[in-house]
Amino acid sequence: MREIFQSQLHEVQTRLIEIAEDAARVAEKATKAFTTSDVTLADEAIAVADAMTNKALALDELVIKILAKQSPVARDLRILVSALRISASLERMGALAGHIAAIARYRFPGAAVPEALKATFEEMGALDVKLAHQVVELLKNTDADFARQIQAEDERVDELHRSVFDTVLGDSWKENAMFTVDVTLASRYHERFADHVVDISSKVSYLTTGDWSDEDLTA
Amino acid sequence: MREIFQSQLHEVQTRLIEIAEDAARVAEKATKAFTTSDVTLADEAIAVADAMTNKALALDELVIKILAKQSPVARDLRILVSALRISASLERMGALAGHIAAIARYRFPGAAVPEALKATFEEMGALDVKLAHQVVELLKNTDADFARQIQAEDERVDELHRSVFDTVLGDSWKENAMFTVDVTLASRYHERFADHVVDISSKVSYLTTGDWSDEDLTA
Repeated sequence: MREIFQSQLHEVQTRLIEIAEDAARVAEKATKAFTTSDVTLADEAIAVADAMTNKALALDELVIKILAKQSPVARDLRILVSALRISASLERMGALAGHIAAIARYRFPGAAVPEALKATFEEMGALDVKLAHQVVELLKNTDADFARQIQAEDERVDELHRSVFDTVLGDSWKENAMFTVDVTLASRYHERFADHVVDISSKVSYLTTGDWSDEDLTA
Repeated sequence: MREIFQSQLHEVQTRLIEIAEDAARVAEKATKAFTTSDVTLADEAIAVADAMTNKALALDELVIKILAKQSPVARDLRILVSALRISASLERMGALAGHIAAIARYRFPGAAVPEALKATFEEMGALDVKLAHQVVELLKNTDADFARQIQAEDERVDELHRSVFDTVLGDSWKENAMFTVDVTLASRYHERFADHVVDISSKVSYLTTGDWSDEDLTA
């Protein structure tokens, strides 16, 4: 029984990693599409993001099946509940990166980002991509120190997010309302993407270090 | 055993209803604070939203405890997994309404909404409040028809959300970038709030009408 359960947990982990790889792929394509007005990349990003919904749904069904058949307690139970939450976060990451791609698509052949903010969005996009790749690694190694390290790394994204507003609200901002709307939303999507990475990292860190009060849960 | 389980499920439902009532309260205070620049209401909204986080966390812990002690299968299991998701959506609704209140707070004593969009945000805010109250009702009566009815009602919110962009991108929009940023984000928060209502309604509707393939889950 324990052996079957371990192989099922392994299957959950493998599928989470696959979905995280998709999220990283969407982020790569979307952030590049956004700063370079590449409509083909934007379409690819949106397609991968759309396909993630069904993968997340299938994973959730697998988790519910395992919960029903194995009736896990304590840490095993928490791992499965966390898997449901991580899958929800990964799906949102795909959707948010998809929104970034959609702005690029919508503005094509025009640029979605004015020159004054190009470097900011390039850095913010590169950070989101890096964070997404780190989530893939984290789901593979489930290392608590690595999880804590990732949690600190969204600070720079938050800083860049605030700097977008400083630029837009500054005296030198001469762009029209369309650019203002686009960069406001795109910046928010980049920031929320990183937030989900932090959420996932906290969950992994909690799972590897948490005090589960096992006696209570298995009583 | 079954009796204990039923009383535990009832406790989960009662707590979800309480958190949904909080979400409705935050929406009421926040949307009013936003259109009337009432900073006291904004502060109250933010305080209620902050307190929701711990309530949602406590509910999640209760659900995990029930899963561990009762090892439910089939429909009972799905109800508990759905409770986790509904609690996450309710918490996000509180956070989003809190963001709306924060914009009002930040702009005080100035207005957060320019005259041209006041009626739009009044309607959008009233719809969010109405939807939040409907979620409270739905969690009480778990009626599938009512759930489907709610799912259709966010269409008007989406329409208003799009109309905010039409206004901002139109020739008659003469407001500064600060207003453009504020209304863009506020509109997005209102729309996401309604999205979560739709998500919750789908889950309730699924629970009351879904085909659970019970033989598979209880095998």
